Amino acid sequence: MALVPTRTSKNPVGVGGHRMHEWAFATSSWRRMHGQQGGRSGIDDDFVSRADTNIGAWVIGRNMFGPVRGPWPDELWRGWWGENPPYHTPVFVLTHHARNPIEMAGGTTFHFVTDGIRSALRRAAEAAQGRDVRIGGGVATVQSCLRAGLVDETHLAVVPVLLGSGDNLFQGLDLLQLGYRCTHYRPTPSAAHIMIAKAVP
Amino acid sequence: MALVPTRTSKNPVGVGGHRMHEWAFATSSWRRMHGQQGGRSGIDDDFVSRADTNIGAWVIGRNMFGPVRGPWPDELWRGWWGENPPYHTPVFVLTHHARNPIEMAGGTTFHFVTDGIRSALRRAAEAAQGRDVRIGGGVATVQSCLRAGLVDETHLAVVPVLLGSGDNLFQGLDLLQLGYRCTHYRPTPSAAHIMIAKAVP
Repeated sequence: MALVPTRTSKNPVGVGGHRMHEWAFATSSWRRMHGQQGGRSGIDDDFVSRADTNIGAWVIGRNMFGPVRGPWPDELWRGWWGENPPYHTPVFVLTHHARNPIEMAGGTTFHFVTDGIRSALRRAAEAAQGRDVRIGGGVATVQSCLRAGLVDETHLAVVPVLLGSGDNLFQGLDLLQLGYRCTHYRPTPSAAHIMIAKAVP
Repeated sequence: MALVPTRTSKNPVGVGGHRMHEWAFATSSWRRMHGQQGGRSGIDDDFVSRADTNIGAWVIGRNMFGPVRGPWPDELWRGWWGENPPYHTPVFVLTHHARNPIEMAGGTTFHFVTDGIRSALRRAAEAAQGRDVRIGGGVATVQSCLRAGLVDETHLAVVPVLLGSGDNLFQGLDLLQLGYRCTHYRPTPSAAHIMIAKAVP
């Protein structure tokens, strides 16, 4: 619940973390994106489908890209997702360590940004050519964006799973003072969906 | 969301904190307990009703009892709730500062416990005579009880309200390691109800 579990190289979303996403795995939109058939329609599916619509670029943190820390030892690590990652757009990866872009199959190119979140979002917005920029995570990246007031809309899926420990999305973050409000609440049998957006001044 | 807002003497549940409880205020059980008619039945109402059933004693923290800090200057403060508080059982108040019990109307007696949470829970269990002990809050009190493994069952009502700042119930608390699991999830249009309980060994 608003907690992202400790990540290891064997558990890219953390021990038990896949349970946070089971509501999405069961939807037809998620399954279609990953080359599978079947799955459920309904509110959960609407959220997955909407989050994937009109996206022109992604921004992710380095820990979401992979388990390698510090300077890149070589060019071998190319993300968790194989040769055809599920982004199909430019993806701007925040890192302190420069690296050449990696062009993958299916339209995904990873760009490595070493001069901070504002630069990453600016470059992503340019690349998106009028479409939306999606911030994938993790918690530190989302917090940086929220703190800088650079997020228009956040989708939270609250699920009844205890993770034990990890990064807490809300810790030290005064979203009210930053101008955010809860704008939607749609609970389903799998997750309580909450949208947070900038209040119109 | 699992955050209890900053409390002031004018706002006993914190600035904006009443919005956390609106799901309960609308139920027929809550209204009946507070001498009012009407209100809604259904899942929200079932949770309010169940939480009030078979309770033989309460344990609360001093900040839930009132805004007075440090040694009691006099006997004037008698709780937030007037002369007939909504407990109708013995209530054990955790404090570092001794005070004589206060007998209120309607069966509520406030007892002040200065030797810690285990003592408060033991005395409450004795007073409850086989019925349940309910831990009212606030966050520090609930965390103490969870950390000591002394809670059988916790009801969380997740509501789509941003509070900005306050105490985070989950911060620094590894509920998995403490042996807890999510056992129920019942979302309603007003709140996502989650029950956390000790896993059976």
